[in-house]
Amino acid sequence: MLNGGVKMSHEEHKAKAPKKFKFAVITVSDTASLGKREDLSGYYIIEELKKEGNDNVYYAVVPDEKLKIIKAVIEALEKADIVITTGGTGITRRDITIEALRPLFDEEFVGFGEIFRLKSYEEVGTAAVLSRATAGIIRDKESKIVFCLPGSLNAVKTALEIIKREAYHILKHARE
Amino acid sequence: MLNGGVKMSHEEHKAKAPKKFKFAVITVSDTASLGKREDLSGYYIIEELKKEGNDNVYYAVVPDEKLKIIKAVIEALEKADIVITTGGTGITRRDITIEALRPLFDEEFVGFGEIFRLKSYEEVGTAAVLSRATAGIIRDKESKIVFCLPGSLNAVKTALEIIKREAYHILKHARE
Amino acid sequence: MLNGGVKMSHEEHKAKAPKKFKFAVITVSDTASLGKREDLSGYYIIEELKKEGNDNVYYAVVPDEKLKIIKAVIEALEKADIVITTGGTGITRRDITIEALRPLFDEEFVGFGEIFRLKSYEEVGTAAVLSRATAGIIRDKESKIVFCLPGSLNAVKTALEIIKREAYHILKHARE
Amino acid sequence: MLNGGVKMSHEEHKAKAPKKFKFAVITVSDTASLGKREDLSGYYIIEELKKEGNDNVYYAVVPDEKLKIIKAVIEALEKADIVITTGGTGITRRDITIEALRPLFDEEFVGFGEIFRLKSYEEVGTAAVLSRATAGIIRDKESKIVFCLPGSLNAVKTALEIIKREAYHILKHARE
Amino acid sequence: MLNGGVKMSHEEHKAKAPKKFKFAVITVSDTASLGKREDLSGYYIIEELKKEGNDNVYYAVVPDEKLKIIKAVIEALEKADIVITTGGTGITRRDITIEALRPLFDEEFVGFGEIFRLKSYEEVGTAAVLSRATAGIIRDKESKIVFCLPGSLNAVKTALEIIKREAYHILKHARE
Amino acid sequence: MLNGGVKMSHEEHKAKAPKKFKFAVITVSDTASLGKREDLSGYYIIEELKKEGNDNVYYAVVPDEKLKIIKAVIEALEKADIVITTGGTGITRRDITIEALRPLFDEEFVGFGEIFRLKSYEEVGTAAVLSRATAGIIRDKESKIVFCLPGSLNAVKTALEIIKREAYHILKHARE
Repeated sequence: MLNGGVKMSHEEHKAKAPKKFKFAVITVSDTASLGKREDLSGYYIIEELKKEGNDNVYYAVVPDEKLKIIKAVIEALEKADIVITTGGTGITRRDITIEALRPLFDEEFVGFGEIFRLKSYEEVGTAAVLSRATAGIIRDKESKIVFCLPGSLNAVKTALEIIKREAYHILKHARE
Repeated sequence: MLNGGVKMSHEEHKAKAPKKFKFAVITVSDTASLGKREDLSGYYIIEELKKEGNDNVYYAVVPDEKLKIIKAVIEALEKADIVITTGGTGITRRDITIEALRPLFDEEFVGFGEIFRLKSYEEVGTAAVLSRATAGIIRDKESKIVFCLPGSLNAVKTALEIIKREAYHILKHARE
Repeated sequence: MLNGGVKMSHEEHKAKAPKKFKFAVITVSDTASLGKREDLSGYYIIEELKKEGNDNVYYAVVPDEKLKIIKAVIEALEKADIVITTGGTGITRRDITIEALRPLFDEEFVGFGEIFRLKSYEEVGTAAVLSRATAGIIRDKESKIVFCLPGSLNAVKTALEIIKREAYHILKHARE
Repeated sequence: MLNGGVKMSHEEHKAKAPKKFKFAVITVSDTASLGKREDLSGYYIIEELKKEGNDNVYYAVVPDEKLKIIKAVIEALEKADIVITTGGTGITRRDITIEALRPLFDEEFVGFGEIFRLKSYEEVGTAAVLSRATAGIIRDKESKIVFCLPGSLNAVKTALEIIKREAYHILKHARE
Repeated sequence: MLNGGVKMSHEEHKAKAPKKFKFAVITVSDTASLGKREDLSGYYIIEELKKEGNDNVYYAVVPDEKLKIIKAVIEALEKADIVITTGGTGITRRDITIEALRPLFDEEFVGFGEIFRLKSYEEVGTAAVLSRATAGIIRDKESKIVFCLPGSLNAVKTALEIIKREAYHILKHARE
Repeated sequence: MLNGGVKMSHEEHKAKAPKKFKFAVITVSDTASLGKREDLSGYYIIEELKKEGNDNVYYAVVPDEKLKIIKAVIEALEKADIVITTGGTGITRRDITIEALRPLFDEEFVGFGEIFRLKSYEEVGTAAVLSRATAGIIRDKESKIVFCLPGSLNAVKTALEIIKREAYHILKHARE
């Protein structure tokens, strides 16, 4: 059962979340995996999670290759409750993060992508159509969440606002 | 063909809808089906439909079990044009209303879930991501509509605003 | 990789787009294909594209029949980079444009339908739920885009605002 | 884990099976449901099961309508461990038994249809191509099996040979 | 409803079939479409159909490209009741006939592929595993059948034996 | 393009295959992964491959857990051309090998499962229905094959006969 209306307790969730769950960040990028560019989006996510008290964020960088993405996320799930990927959610031929990870999801979480695009629309207008960002629940021994974020720093900032607010809430529900 | 722009006639639709169509309400909840809690959301929907002139709303309560949900909705479809379910659309392990009913849909109605989450976002912020509410058309001898709403009273209020405004419009189109 | 945040360059895109890509318009309508009514929505799209410098827009009208729709779109793809269909995206029994074209898509472009319904909601309220408009990428020798728009003129105006702004951006990404 | 090689114990299974499990027979046929023809295939299955000691076989006849088929099978599953449907597995427009029931299956059992068609081929030659017969496992509180057989008496005889031999074996595995 | 047991009438079917239905042959082959090799398999099918009285078999050759295959089959369906494709059903990267055509099928006809592989197994042993040959029903105004055959002449001979025997039977059922 | 008819060259293939390709064996079994029973089927496959000249077969044992199975197969694909899994293809609740691996397949190879069940039927009769064994092609940088075999030793023997005969043939085609 869902209780989507208890807005006042979010500040409280925000405070508790980082202390309760372990995070992982997987950057999906051909160029970053070759060391040809700095992984600004990945570093940003790790810094933001640190600010909230998460010091040991698992981190890996992989190229835009289906099997490497799947393996990296499975390894991250062995160590974390919430995995955040960045990159590979656009519409170029190399963007395959979502195609790689969707089959691992026991349930796709369509609301995350929608609300992310809604917030993007408020910020950048119709360019929001370009992102296929999504999220899913993986029911291993414990339920875990994977968020698939775009690679651009601005998009990551928008998405992370949602994740920081709702991560506690989402994982609590998923584990009921 | 769709005519999405005739906004002025909605008040008229609202008035006509309850006189033309039969409604059913199916509450999906382990605890309510055992009598362990009152079905506030189900009662609310029935009361709201009554206010608009619908006195004979078919009503049933079932636990969060796939086959029981499907059977209850098929029985409701034998007596009603529009079936509203409440409960089982979240992300806990027991939430299976959508998984149970989606295969019955001849067409999923993605706009309903999206606009519901958009309205939720306006009301409760990013917590709107948590709901997987959706709707679908079932083309039996006549076309019928199933709306799958969350269990929380606040979410039901938000969703019912949409249904009350658009039910007439939707069913009229679906039957063309 | 996606760069969703560069809003200031859109005016520039808008100006360049019509000079770079070829468009096709396919009207899907039983009545228009029989000559029983004027194809206002199709004409509107062609006029708008002309205003931006596209003089040779490929154009065809087909009835609401699955195989005829698929064939018309394949023929349009032989001549254009971006195909815009209008009609057949609602929920009547004859509306099958999306069912016909979705299997041709190598990737569905969910953000387009969402942002279209979001803009519709701002304009016509909850009636926005009625449209199933979507878009997809077809990766033939070159990547191409198909937008599936509703048939109503108001809905077409709303959707075309998005397409005019983002067509250049979308096709550029899809071809990377 | 599967042990497909223990052939000598089949006679033993055959003897035990009818005493251990409850069967249901659902005939899917427009004409039989209207009383316009005798349900020879349904009666045959019931008689054969009786010969092996099953006296209380649940039985129902429904027309070739999706929701009625689903409801009948759910009601049968409330009373039986193994449900056998006959009719509606061919390729006429009215044949929808498989389309109706496949979404209820937690796992489709492709080997049953294959071995049935292999035996049919031995008996009637290439006409075996015409049948889409299949089976599936439904994991409710206990695992249950649904076999979807053709309507013709000869095909039913062929299929029932497989079911009588393997029912015990299949259900035992499905419940591990 | 299916009647899979009436073996004695097949000779009669065989005689009637060619007089009643129109056939089309679509060869799918990069090399044949460039004129680099003779289309032995296509010619063989046409000759065999002629022997049975079918003089006007529609014929086209297309390369192994998804959109070209779909368009050729739709054009063939405008002129024929039964479309036979040859080529593109194996497992090389260029083999995409089945991926192209499956979405057009209203019902896949799994028995055809199975019985074809069973006959191949009798003739060539376990090499039969290599073929993904299948067939499907397309329910346009009238129901039509598409058979997707391998490209090799030996495989075509095996498959055509089934088609010649069962085409009448299959189409008669599909049109009920 | 497929050439299913060249039977005489199989002995030659059989001889060449082991020298050309690298194999991996993944045993999927809760009890074997805990060391509670010997992995007879896994050892048998490795011994048979050795007899044909394959000395360095990659080998791993994993429990019947979805993510562990996927990860083990991805690791095997990093080192081998052909991966053979044994176990987890039956119909108990723990059997999930096929569900885990099917989403990795770029193309499912239905003929392998069919011909395996056909051979099983010749050996053990209708008990062959119980196996869901299948195979798939994974198109990474190079195309690779995954065969999903049952856990029972007898079934493994039957399946390995097919693999030894056709592995060379299959991989050669898949890499064209």
